[in-house]
Amino acid sequence: METKYSVGLIGLGVMGRSLAQNFARNGYTPIGFDLYPKLPENFNVRVAASVKELTGALSTPRILLMMVPAGDPVDAAISTMKPYLQPGDVIIDGGNSFFLDTERRSRELAKDGLLYIGMGVSGGESGALWGPSLMPGGAMEAWPLVKDMLVAISAKTENGEACVGWMGPGGAGHYVKMVHNGIEYGDMQLIAEIYDLLHRGAGLSNQELSKIFSDWNTRELNSYLIEITAAILSRLDPETGHSLVDLILDEAAQKGTGKWTSQNSYDLGVAIPTINSAVESRILSSLKDERSQAAKVLGGYSRFKGDVEELVSAAEQALYASKITSYAQGMQLLKAASKEYGWDVNLAEIVRVWRAGCIIRASLLSDITEAFRSNPDLPNLLLDETFSSLVLSRQTGWRKVVQTAISLGIPMLANGASLAYFDAYRSAVLPANLTQAQRDYFGAHTYRRIDKEGVFHTQWEK
Amino acid sequence: METKYSVGLIGLGVMGRSLAQNFARNGYTPIGFDLYPKLPENFNVRVAASVKELTGALSTPRILLMMVPAGDPVDAAISTMKPYLQPGDVIIDGGNSFFLDTERRSRELAKDGLLYIGMGVSGGESGALWGPSLMPGGAMEAWPLVKDMLVAISAKTENGEACVGWMGPGGAGHYVKMVHNGIEYGDMQLIAEIYDLLHRGAGLSNQELSKIFSDWNTRELNSYLIEITAAILSRLDPETGHSLVDLILDEAAQKGTGKWTSQNSYDLGVAIPTINSAVESRILSSLKDERSQAAKVLGGYSRFKGDVEELVSAAEQALYASKITSYAQGMQLLKAASKEYGWDVNLAEIVRVWRAGCIIRASLLSDITEAFRSNPDLPNLLLDETFSSLVLSRQTGWRKVVQTAISLGIPMLANGASLAYFDAYRSAVLPANLTQAQRDYFGAHTYRRIDKEGVFHTQWEK
Repeated sequence: METKYSVGLIGLGVMGRSLAQNFARNGYTPIGFDLYPKLPENFNVRVAASVKELTGALSTPRILLMMVPAGDPVDAAISTMKPYLQPGDVIIDGGNSFFLDTERRSRELAKDGLLYIGMGVSGGESGALWGPSLMPGGAMEAWPLVKDMLVAISAKTENGEACVGWMGPGGAGHYVKMVHNGIEYGDMQLIAEIYDLLHRGAGLSNQELSKIFSDWNTRELNSYLIEITAAILSRLDPETGHSLVDLILDEAAQKGTGKWTSQNSYDLGVAIPTINSAVESRILSSLKDERSQAAKVLGGYSRFKGDVEELVSAAEQALYASKITSYAQGMQLLKAASKEYGWDVNLAEIVRVWRAGCIIRASLLSDITEAFRSNPDLPNLLLDETFSSLVLSRQTGWRKVVQTAISLGIPMLANGASLAYFDAYRSAVLPANLTQAQRDYFGAHTYRRIDKEGVFHTQWEK
Repeated sequence: METKYSVGLIGLGVMGRSLAQNFARNGYTPIGFDLYPKLPENFNVRVAASVKELTGALSTPRILLMMVPAGDPVDAAISTMKPYLQPGDVIIDGGNSFFLDTERRSRELAKDGLLYIGMGVSGGESGALWGPSLMPGGAMEAWPLVKDMLVAISAKTENGEACVGWMGPGGAGHYVKMVHNGIEYGDMQLIAEIYDLLHRGAGLSNQELSKIFSDWNTRELNSYLIEITAAILSRLDPETGHSLVDLILDEAAQKGTGKWTSQNSYDLGVAIPTINSAVESRILSSLKDERSQAAKVLGGYSRFKGDVEELVSAAEQALYASKITSYAQGMQLLKAASKEYGWDVNLAEIVRVWRAGCIIRASLLSDITEAFRSNPDLPNLLLDETFSSLVLSRQTGWRKVVQTAISLGIPMLANGASLAYFDAYRSAVLPANLTQAQRDYFGAHTYRRIDKEGVFHTQWEK
């Protein structure tokens, strides 16, 4: 009798291939399929010639992992394999699908007894190969069937914990991944702005900044993104000998998950200005030609004339405070989504899964996990004792950095948004009373009062 | 023979009633209908007992104007009246419908030969009664049938121009109204933040601030919203004798159009951070209890210790620069939507229609109209010669105000976003090259270079 395979990979692009090899290295027997396979010579995983062959070669209940682009390709892959599946088989979508698509597919496949999992996979190529962070959610009955193999291939923290956990029903897994990516957009933009201030503003070279980021990586900012920033800034272009990053076009692209996070936050009524600013900043970056024209009409930035060492030290504090405030926003969004969609997600468990393997892995995440473990009902990360004092003690540097950028004319949409969020969130009184009065004045929208119950309208025009 | 009526109003709430009276005052014969009419005693417009009676009483082709809440009520009203209509009749939706709903309804009704118009109506109750700003769009064949009556009831500018104009096909009218409301959100938040800085920060009383806003209203900031802000701030609560605005709860509500503007901007890839910040600020305001708790943990703002007169003068400049920058963003959004949806809108005509009657009416709008009239292809309002020098000459005050707010801990999400947008837009070089390098590092997303054509990938990990 033919050996039965333990997991079928549909889609053998960079991510699918790497996950297949990860399974194989961990004692599982993967079999793959791709409509248009482009495989490296040393790819040592069996590739089926058809979906029929692949499904026939799998032990039952079948475990199928799709690694195809989000959107129509996912629906196409599902309909191609469905005729060969039977009730109890498990389909996992490991792409960046929109969570409402995942909810729809879940419902549809459940009618045929198929168990559907939408799984966030973070860590890029190297994560997929050596251990990604995995965020599965969907049909709970499937979790015991896939748990061991997902634990085996997942990233492990320093103390050996597997970075995989059950996120919740329906589209919870893909939602968590979407917010992960939104937070990643925020982190990247916060870093880019600090780099910009120190590079264009304070005139530090990329080599000097590489050392500064390396140094920061040994302390509270320790994280994958800071680590690769240091590596990038030291890299020279082999052809020209110039700093490579300076030769890269400053137009940042995006693939949708950041945008979805922003759009969904408005539906849920959660303010995530740092993440939104990061998406806006990518959009503005894409207008390279207009910006070059505008620089001629509207003038440029000026050079920092103060104490550079002090600025660098303030920048480290600002970046950390902005980052904490950005995570506070992301956690609010997850909490609101869990309530709105009835997922009952565990915030501590989500952050725990992000501690290794994924792009936003950072020392900070252990403390966030702890904060939500010790108080699952924490209204906001900024109200946790550890985090409130972390941010409060960095306030001076934080404000100084954003003010300095403003005085130099260097844009800081995201760091500025973090700081303004902090100041708005801690304002017992905001000027929204004036907004309400205006709305009542022109639109008779009514208002409430602070001194008595009820709904009021004033005849403002006399 | 019975007199035939010239226009049928479906929905006799505040807006529908006021428009009916406006038609009557201008020599048209309106007839109204409401499922649950609640009419004031002096309402002197004929009210039909049924939709059948109303449609039967109209001269043909019939002109029907729906003033019902957006969403299902619009579809319900349409299906109720449809059996009594014939090809060539005109249905106008004067509510704040989502523009894609309007596109759908347009297409569906066109199959039956009915002419559908989605019309933005701005000006609140008093505008509807005495002259609103009207933004109709949809079935172009209907425009000659309704133009005269819409001109008659519309607001007029000082030189007698009617504030109504054809916006374009499909959902163009409702889209323009949506962006109008987004800009209104921006204006209101910019004003609220400046008020907050001068009231909480600099300790100016509401009475003093009423005089300051009145003064500002005589100069470049001259506008309806500044005018009513002055009126609101001077108003006393008749019961307690306190400043009324201080007794109003600082939780700003919203009804959807601001949110739609933000969400749509991400789909179109247009950065509108000022409007987005205004929506985020309303969301943050709604967390009154959390904010009160946070103020205890995270501390509060401090009082301004500098020259108050200088700060007031800088605040006037900042508000104007922030407002111009916000309009620049709104115009970019309209331009992108026109391209994306194939509407071919006329930006100068849109702004012309906003110059009287509507909530955002302001002296500034004449100059914006002029800018787009003299150069319809203007890439950005900030690149117009008039506006670039207006903003550049206010830079010092603008930066000072946002920096002061930061130093005091008073949140300025929207003014800060306007300034950061300005600085990003005029940056020939942004740090998005680092973002692209990071994306290529962890996700092999590739990048472009400034020194040669092509798409590149670096093997970053050595």
